[in-house]
Formats: sequence, C-alpha cells, structure tokens
Amino acid sequence: MGRNRRILFARVPQGLPGPGDFRQDTVEVPSPGPGQFLSRTLWLSLDPYLRNIMKGHALYGVALRPGDPMHGDTVARVLESRHPDFAPGEHVVVKNGWQEYALSDGQGVRKVDPEVAPVSTALGVLGMPGLTGYAGLVYLGEPRPGQTVLVSAATGAVGSTVGQVARLMGARPVGIAGSDEKCRHAVEELGFEACIDHRAGDLRAAIRQACPDGVDVYFDNVGGEVLAAAIGNLALHARVVLCGMIEAYSMDGPPAHGPFLGPVVGARATIKGLVVYDHFHRMAEMQKVIGGWIRDGRFRYREDITDGLENAPAAFCRLMQGANFGKSLVRVAAG
Amino acid sequence: MGRNRRILFARVPQGLPGPGDFRQDTVEVPSPGPGQFLSRTLWLSLDPYLRNIMKGHALYGVALRPGDPMHGDTVARVLESRHPDFAPGEHVVVKNGWQEYALSDGQGVRKVDPEVAPVSTALGVLGMPGLTGYAGLVYLGEPRPGQTVLVSAATGAVGSTVGQVARLMGARPVGIAGSDEKCRHAVEELGFEACIDHRAGDLRAAIRQACPDGVDVYFDNVGGEVLAAAIGNLALHARVVLCGMIEAYSMDGPPAHGPFLGPVVGARATIKGLVVYDHFHRMAEMQKVIGGWIRDGRFRYREDITDGLENAPAAFCRLMQGANFGKSLVRVAAG
Repeated sequence: MGRNRRILFARVPQGLPGPGDFRQDTVEVPSPGPGQFLSRTLWLSLDPYLRNIMKGHALYGVALRPGDPMHGDTVARVLESRHPDFAPGEHVVVKNGWQEYALSDGQGVRKVDPEVAPVSTALGVLGMPGLTGYAGLVYLGEPRPGQTVLVSAATGAVGSTVGQVARLMGARPVGIAGSDEKCRHAVEELGFEACIDHRAGDLRAAIRQACPDGVDVYFDNVGGEVLAAAIGNLALHARVVLCGMIEAYSMDGPPAHGPFLGPVVGARATIKGLVVYDHFHRMAEMQKVIGGWIRDGRFRYREDITDGLENAPAAFCRLMQGANFGKSLVRVAAG
Repeated sequence: MGRNRRILFARVPQGLPGPGDFRQDTVEVPSPGPGQFLSRTLWLSLDPYLRNIMKGHALYGVALRPGDPMHGDTVARVLESRHPDFAPGEHVVVKNGWQEYALSDGQGVRKVDPEVAPVSTALGVLGMPGLTGYAGLVYLGEPRPGQTVLVSAATGAVGSTVGQVARLMGARPVGIAGSDEKCRHAVEELGFEACIDHRAGDLRAAIRQACPDGVDVYFDNVGGEVLAAAIGNLALHARVVLCGMIEAYSMDGPPAHGPFLGPVVGARATIKGLVVYDHFHRMAEMQKVIGGWIRDGRFRYREDITDGLENAPAAFCRLMQGANFGKSLVRVAAG
C-alpha cells in the first residue's frame, strides 16, 4: 500500500513541550492480520493528559518511550478489516495515535454514527472530555438548583461542558478562563453567569465578588494558585472536584506544595478525585443527555481545529500553554 | 462569698503560646441571678482549638479579647441555683473557662452522671474529643473491615479514640505519634497494629512500610508535612478526614501552602472537613458505644492531669508543643 506518516515522541520535554520534543517519520502502511482492522485517521484529539505520558514512565496504562509514535485518541474510518465486528467504511474512536494509518484488534474501540453528529464530536463534547465534565459534575459535584458552580479552563472541552451542564441543571455557572475573549465567549455563547480572567489581579477577591454566597461546587481543571483561590471561597458543604492539574503535567516531578486545606474544615467541604475511566459506563447516558441539548440548541461546543498531522506538535504546544480556544483537534484527513 | 481565681487571656501569642500570654487575677465569687446557677469548676479541659481563639478574632462563636477570662470547657458542680433545671450537687459540663467559679444560664450545659464513669471523661473520651474521633471516623472515614486506618496524634484524646474505634470496627489502625514512648503505648495499650514516630526520618516511606496496601482512611489531627506524607500513600477510594490542623493554630495567618493534591486524583480519594459541632446529635450514641467498650475493658483512655488552675497556662503550652500524653486536663478542685 501507500506511505504512513507518523509523529514520534522524541524526548521528555523540559517544562512546557516544544516542537523539538517530537519528530516525524514515514513508514509503510501495515496490513491487517487475522482479527485486526486497518483504519485511516481522520481526527486526532489533543488532550493535556498526553503531556503526562511524555514523562517517560507508565501512566494510564501507557508506557511511551522515545521513538514510539505519539499516543492519542482519534476518529478513524475502517479501510480494510479481518475483524468480524468492523467493516470498511465504518467510523470508530480508536487509539491510532499520531499517525495517518494504524492497525487495531478492536479492543477499546467505539463505533461512531456519522448521522447523529459530526464525527469529531466523538473526541470532544460527545466523547471523553464531555464525559469527564458531565460525570464529574453530576456524580461528584452534585450541584443543586441555584447553587454556584465555579469551573476553571471554562472554555475548554471539559470546562465548557461543566458550565453548560450546571446551567441546564438549574445551577449558576461561573467560569475562570485565560483571556477577555474566552470570558466573553463563556458568558455570551455558553451561558455562564460570569467569567473571571485569571490573569487579571487578585483571583481570590475576584472569585469572592463573582460568587458572593461562596462556591458550592468547584470543578478544577488546572490546580495550583487557581485551586487555592477557589478553596479560599468555599460555601458550607462545598464539593471540590479535582479533574486535571494541568499545571503539574509540565513539571518533572510533583509540585512541592498544594493549597492550604484549612478552609475545607470550616466549610465542611469535600474534595474528590475524578478519573474519567471510572465513568465509561455512563457514556451512553451522557451522549443521550448532551446530544439532546445540542439538538435543542441549548448546548454549544467549540472546536479548535488545526489542519494536517504535521502541525500536531505545534497545536499540542499551544494547548499546553492554554492558547487553544475550544476542544483541540487535528484534522488528519477529510471525513 | 469567697474569692474566685481566674486565668485571663493577656495577649495574642507569637507562634506557640508561652506563659506570658496569660495572667492571673482574683475577683469576688458572683451570685446567681434569676435563671442562673453558680458552679465550682472541678476539671478544666485543655484543647488545641483554644489556641485558635487566642488569635484575637471571633471563631467557633467565641470572640476572646485580651483581659477576658480564658475560654474552656469544664466539668463543674452546681453550688447554688436559681435555674429550674439545675440543682446544687449536680455535675455539669459547662463553659466556665479558666476560673474556679462561674455563673451559667444553662445554655449548652450538659449534665454528667458520676455513677457512669469518672466525671473527667465527660471532657475526653465520653465528651467532645471522643465524639470528634467517633463521629469523624464512623460517619466521614467510613472504614470497612480489614481496611487500614492511619491517624496522627495517635495517643491524644481524639487520635486514641479513632484508633480504638477503628480496631473495634474490624479495621487495622496505624498511628503516628511524637515519641517512642507514645508509639509503644499506642501498640501495647491501645491496640494499634503499628505506630510511626514522626520525628524519625522519612515519614512518607515509613507510612508506606506500615501500610503496604495503602491508607484507606487517614484521620488528620495535625496538617502540614504529616498530612502531605499521608496523601502520598492513599489507597484507591481512600477517605481523608481533616479534623484539626494544629500546626496552623499557632501561626499568625493561614500557611501559604498545603499538600500537593495530585495523588487524590489518581486514588479517586475524598477529603472531608470535620467540625464536631455538626455531630452533637450523636453524643448519646457515642457514649453508649464507647461507654460499653470501656466497661468491657476493650477500650482504654489516658488522661494527662495537671493539678491546680494556676498551672493551666504551662499545661496548655505543653499541649501545643505536643508534649502531653493523653487527654490534657487540669484538676481545679476535688470532685
């Protein structure tokens, strides 16, 4: 067959990843053996957790070594199949990684119906990030009507889900984001009641102003000072959902410190760790609920699309700097 | 009547409290007005939370100002009563503070039956510290049989309750304490399976060794580095109960930092803030359960008794240095 372009993990980044931490090669497109299928990558999902598995030790069941193709979730189209459950032409969510073609034995592969929604949404709002925000908010955050739900990285794939699900559950979503433009989008497009630019001054005071009755649910996507500022503003019986400490992903080791937890005692608050893999059994529920809201026009999603696999490293570096705006995707080939 | 000796709050301590932060005076013993009773203090309870209310701002509903008598829970005997519910000779738990005699209007006062147990236990194992350990472990920690329960300040009033309740619920208690002698007491007298001297080397490694399957429940009485080391050793779905961050009580402001919370995510752990006042409705339940165990000889308590109200400041300073050994009490007058 033809040629398969791949992006390889070249070395462990120092701090934020840079283009030199990746390299490109081209190999033969492989042929499926018995029980395998070959698929062509259409969409590659860029997610912050990938920085964590670039640390050179096993994480999330993945052990990535320099020279390996970069790991990653993709939407792909089956080209050739020797697997009884997958037929050419079908769309699947499959861990092809950062390459144009890959083989799969079908393990962990999910089919996608292109009639329901654009297939790219299977990597975002109707996929893992959507499930993270939905299950984390509904089952760990447990917001009640009228309560204040604060979420960081509010315009990202997870944060925008949290905010909109909170709104549609009758709660009051307040966002934290990294620019004026993102904050405007959160309020005007996503229906947040307020959005705080975390680069503007005293974050703790800004949260107090936007959440005068305190924060009932804080959904943390970043850790660090933002988490500490939120913990300083908890309402009685508040729930803090720890999702991704993106700030720590780009560090060599764990940070020496975290937030002072004294306010957690006074607030009788609860802090809960969220790992989306525990909630995969809720995928269909999430797709039904959020899919319905999307069709009703009550729920919006935004994609930050980069064209061409060769541009994936630069797009990933932008994501890790917080410079993406919406779910970060690479269009590897047309649908 | 006679003279009433009192210990007053003289000034906000710098760091750990010292004897100069208190002063003594003597006033007339007051006479009860309508609806009041006069009682004589027998036992004064010394508790770490008192350091917190010596910061000069209101806390726990108490606003202590320099020159006020020190606040504190006591067991007292009613001497003279113009209150319909209290008769001379009765024993009560009442907030007399650090003085030999005081008036009360009966609000928040609890009667103590001297036939059930020594009345001093109403300030310790059968009082607020016992309730803190019992309700915090049972209702927030929720240990299951065979699980590992780690507790700091393991020989203190709260910690020794947590460890013994854990043992009697079929869990495996591991303590952290501040000396060889305390650790020996925890294992030999209180039935802990192991006890770690937190002053001996690498605490995180020592916890890992004593809790090879991880910590299912960590009951935190101290905060700081001990809390961080415990969080580094959590088992899947662990519960962390934050009770008292004694370390922070002696600081002017809140500490700048706390523990890094990354491990909470991976462990899908839960951190919960405990305030004992939320559990006062469980006092009778706790007294029945622990009282029964004490009568059976399966539950032990230890008191660290100082004689004479004039020695209360020194005893309190010892407590805040962790130099007490058991529930810290001052015997103000004989039974």
